[in-house]
Amino acid sequence: MSSPHLGRHMLLELFDCPYAELNSLEDVRSRLLRITDEIGATRVNENFHHFSPQGISGVVIIAESHLTIHTWPEHGYAAIDLFTCDASIDYDLAERLLVGAFKAGRHERQTLARGQMTVVHPA
Amino acid sequence: MSSPHLGRHMLLELFDCPYAELNSLEDVRSRLLRITDEIGATRVNENFHHFSPQGISGVVIIAESHLTIHTWPEHGYAAIDLFTCDASIDYDLAERLLVGAFKAGRHERQTLARGQMTVVHPA
Repeated sequence: MSSPHLGRHMLLELFDCPYAELNSLEDVRSRLLRITDEIGATRVNENFHHFSPQGISGVVIIAESHLTIHTWPEHGYAAIDLFTCDASIDYDLAERLLVGAFKAGRHERQTLARGQMTVVHPA
Repeated sequence: MSSPHLGRHMLLELFDCPYAELNSLEDVRSRLLRITDEIGATRVNENFHHFSPQGISGVVIIAESHLTIHTWPEHGYAAIDLFTCDASIDYDLAERLLVGAFKAGRHERQTLARGQMTVVHPA
């Protein structure tokens, strides 16, 4: 990630989460909003939806970009994405808080650069 | 992507887009909603926000997961994410429609598997 980029994107895979942690709309929503605040992001808008028979999709639009979650309670799995254009957001802190909040037994994280600008050196 | 996974995630980087294509809230919103319909996804909810002095963040929650956009008109750049748990959504079509809608001069695409389940073979 040495070349200039406009945003960072953390893809977090949470495995082996208890069913109940992934299927309560109110709990999932309140955890994501709390963690948004704890990492110092600025909330702009949010939408959370409970699917039948199970599973939640949620999005927090933040001034820095977005935080999303999709849960598959029947598989103990949640996919979380944190996309930010503010370099001061602490991804290690976000990872720790999210893994803890959903009691994941195991997790994987990837962090990608988004909007990698090509630096052109004129001749 | 041979092992079982719950979702697919396309990360699309659009470069060299005209400024105006990335800075009209109404145009960005109507294009994303139209393309959501054209790829056969089911809209659940949506949020679009115009930042000052420029830039748009938008999210369409779909029954299949989400479609998001963040634009940097001053850099001619947009980051688009399509996350789906329905294998029938055509990512090649989505890519073509999105690149065309925003008149990107150049683009990059990555497609990732999300929720890769470990297959355990009992001894």
